[in-house]
Amino acid sequence: MSLTIKLHVTTSYLNLNLNTSKNTTKVANFKVKLRTKPIYHCDPLLSVVSNNSAMHASAQPGQPAIRSSLIDPDGGALVDLVVPEGKKASKALEAESLPKVNLTKVDLEWVHVISEGWASPLRGFMREDQYLQSLHFNSLRTQDGSVVNMSLPIVLAIDDETKERIGSSPNVGLLGPNGDLIGILSSIEIYKHNKEERIARTWGSTAPGLPYVEEAITPAGNWLIGGDLEALEHIKYNDGLDHYRLSPQQLRKEFDRRQADAVFAFQLRNPVHNGHALLMNDTRRRLLEMGYKNPILLLHPLGGFTKPDDVPLDVRMEQHSKVLEDGVLDPETTIVGIFPSPMHYAGPTEVQWHAKARINAGANFYIVGRDPAGMGHPTEKRDLYDPDHGKKVLSMAPGLEKLNILPFRVAAYDNVEKKMAFFDPSRAKDFLFISGTKMRAFAKSGENPPDGFMCPGGWKVLVNYYESLQTEEASQQQAVFST
Amino acid sequence: MSLTIKLHVTTSYLNLNLNTSKNTTKVANFKVKLRTKPIYHCDPLLSVVSNNSAMHASAQPGQPAIRSSLIDPDGGALVDLVVPEGKKASKALEAESLPKVNLTKVDLEWVHVISEGWASPLRGFMREDQYLQSLHFNSLRTQDGSVVNMSLPIVLAIDDETKERIGSSPNVGLLGPNGDLIGILSSIEIYKHNKEERIARTWGSTAPGLPYVEEAITPAGNWLIGGDLEALEHIKYNDGLDHYRLSPQQLRKEFDRRQADAVFAFQLRNPVHNGHALLMNDTRRRLLEMGYKNPILLLHPLGGFTKPDDVPLDVRMEQHSKVLEDGVLDPETTIVGIFPSPMHYAGPTEVQWHAKARINAGANFYIVGRDPAGMGHPTEKRDLYDPDHGKKVLSMAPGLEKLNILPFRVAAYDNVEKKMAFFDPSRAKDFLFISGTKMRAFAKSGENPPDGFMCPGGWKVLVNYYESLQTEEASQQQAVFST
Repeated sequence: MSLTIKLHVTTSYLNLNLNTSKNTTKVANFKVKLRTKPIYHCDPLLSVVSNNSAMHASAQPGQPAIRSSLIDPDGGALVDLVVPEGKKASKALEAESLPKVNLTKVDLEWVHVISEGWASPLRGFMREDQYLQSLHFNSLRTQDGSVVNMSLPIVLAIDDETKERIGSSPNVGLLGPNGDLIGILSSIEIYKHNKEERIARTWGSTAPGLPYVEEAITPAGNWLIGGDLEALEHIKYNDGLDHYRLSPQQLRKEFDRRQADAVFAFQLRNPVHNGHALLMNDTRRRLLEMGYKNPILLLHPLGGFTKPDDVPLDVRMEQHSKVLEDGVLDPETTIVGIFPSPMHYAGPTEVQWHAKARINAGANFYIVGRDPAGMGHPTEKRDLYDPDHGKKVLSMAPGLEKLNILPFRVAAYDNVEKKMAFFDPSRAKDFLFISGTKMRAFAKSGENPPDGFMCPGGWKVLVNYYESLQTEEASQQQAVFST
Repeated sequence: MSLTIKLHVTTSYLNLNLNTSKNTTKVANFKVKLRTKPIYHCDPLLSVVSNNSAMHASAQPGQPAIRSSLIDPDGGALVDLVVPEGKKASKALEAESLPKVNLTKVDLEWVHVISEGWASPLRGFMREDQYLQSLHFNSLRTQDGSVVNMSLPIVLAIDDETKERIGSSPNVGLLGPNGDLIGILSSIEIYKHNKEERIARTWGSTAPGLPYVEEAITPAGNWLIGGDLEALEHIKYNDGLDHYRLSPQQLRKEFDRRQADAVFAFQLRNPVHNGHALLMNDTRRRLLEMGYKNPILLLHPLGGFTKPDDVPLDVRMEQHSKVLEDGVLDPETTIVGIFPSPMHYAGPTEVQWHAKARINAGANFYIVGRDPAGMGHPTEKRDLYDPDHGKKVLSMAPGLEKLNILPFRVAAYDNVEKKMAFFDPSRAKDFLFISGTKMRAFAKSGENPPDGFMCPGGWKVLVNYYESLQTEEASQQQAVFST
């Protein structure tokens, strides 16, 4: 099933420019789809978010509702590859009868991503023509000639033995890491997996120690298998966080329900400190100044594979909920969801994927900071990427023209004002940059960070986490808070 | 000065499809610019080419001339950055007064390329925004929003000392390898030269032994300097081959003079054997079948940096001239020119550059074979690139939609027919593939290759060359004849 959300809303072209006027468009006869139960349940965020029904009151009776689906999904229609309930049994039987491909944990995350339409218009693991376009051009040409962004190869590797087993079968069944039947890949195409080339073109480096490479490419097979995906059901992880895993379709519905007239996404894989909050709140202020009435923040932590020294997802989610509970971010205008993609740490290449996927989720503004999706070079004492390249590449990327890119200024602790503030180079010495290493040192020693660095509730979550860590500091000095 | 060649000719969209009808367009009041002297002089090709005045007779008096400029240069106007004669003295004085940047031999080849418009619409060495677009997207977005192909970063590296010397000067003078003043780079921008990332993203490999990397990147400085180029004069090499170095403007004029109604380009860096000739002649036949009256072949050997075990340019040019003298290719319908670019051996990335530059020279058809711009992996026993990726990537490359890509079948020696023929997999055993190694073995031993492999005059040139080589076979088994 694919859900087409075609709107009569034109998005203002606003790349890197906030001084534009807003397009307001009224769509007659549009029905707001009310959700029968709140998205957030059994969670600290629940009480906060389910209280925001006040928003509904602002819609005057008889007045056409404002559409929150402010931006078309890539390709025009949101891809949905989850088999409808009525066909599940027959599809499961079919999958059972096919040669099987075993999925790793990361492969399953990609099935999640593809099946829910985050990678729209991609309808399965990439065939070779899509792989080559992604690798060389960071974009795909669609059948109507238009270009969509697609900077990361979304591929499924198999080994020689699996290839042999598949033989000439046009379709294969997919088995999850636990051996459960996940779905079907149809009209398959098997082609060579040149790992060196894939790594070099995706990361701009082949140095040993790239986390995703070590996790998902080096151990993988020498073939890639592309084809059309069908997932037997929505991917669940049963880790107590599935209710945060809102699909693009669910997010779009929630934006509609809240009658958002702008949605700004913030990708993160780290705890939220008050510097982050400052810029998110500042972005909202600027959007209001531009004339938007109800800009909604999509606080969108990445939930797939991350490297071992990143703060784990469950700790981050707990920290984020404290940030909302403590009122650092306004729950009335914030939606927290988990972005199911694994992390590549591929800097300027990956930030495009992060932005593109949020288009599909309905965001028309994307916040980008210093060195997005970057990390330290695994073998040299320097950043892997120029910290400015991410936002530069993002602002020029093919297929992202319809997305409004919001580069943000660096925030640091202002020792004079005693709070997180935008860094002012004219009085650089007043500012304290609190790196991940420094933050961990605070947490380990039980010392508090400077007042105003992070809300107390959020900080406590981290202290508990670091106290629970028995292992010594990893040697990598990765900045946990860089975004 | 920039020469605008705006035409009323629309090119048929024919990617990978020869079964289209031809667009014939008559342009009224178009004056064929007759050259006062032939392009080819003091050369074996001279007598051949200057005899083809018969072509002129076909233009009926009073009838509008057919335009040969069948395809717009990228960006609409052919870039020409050679300072006009009248301004040369003042520009030389200006250049003299500026901080200097020393050019290597390869840098000078790029000045040649840029200044004559092969890289149109590029007007100088790349600034960072162009570099990033080239590296990540293999294309540049122009000011009007359209996209042109640009797969290789065309950049100029400087070292710390030069950067220091330039200081805050907005412009620099360029000195050639012999210390002669070459030109000016204005409104400069200096940015970091991350060699690892540049190499990885351009070659899809960082293995030691990539020829261009070892020649031009590893020894280069850690900064790149971009800016607007002005060349004091056309770059000359004084090697007896300058008369072959026809600029895109000269080529377009020559196509006009010959009243070409289709131009098909053949890029090569190797001697021409009868298999190459077969496919070039076959291409012409197919174009005639499609309704073109006068398709012209641009036989376009690459003249810049090549790796040491490639056949040197002067030997190749002598060999090519024999191929035309011996009538293997028809001099009436062939133009031989030197393409001044250095060779990257960057496979699918580079083939786009090879095609794009030929658009600027006026070619609207481009022949592409197996593993274009490829080579053996420098450290592993395999091709560096999948031999099919070149033509696949080329057929999908952004900005090349207006170029007709002609993939060709592999030719090999047919032992039954005793001649070079298109390889027929159904009788594979009848075919002999003559690799570069085998060819060199023939030449060294004084043995002749099979009858019909290459014209006798061309073969003799190679025998003489290999006989003159004192060094033993290089260890690399690079196929000399792969394109």
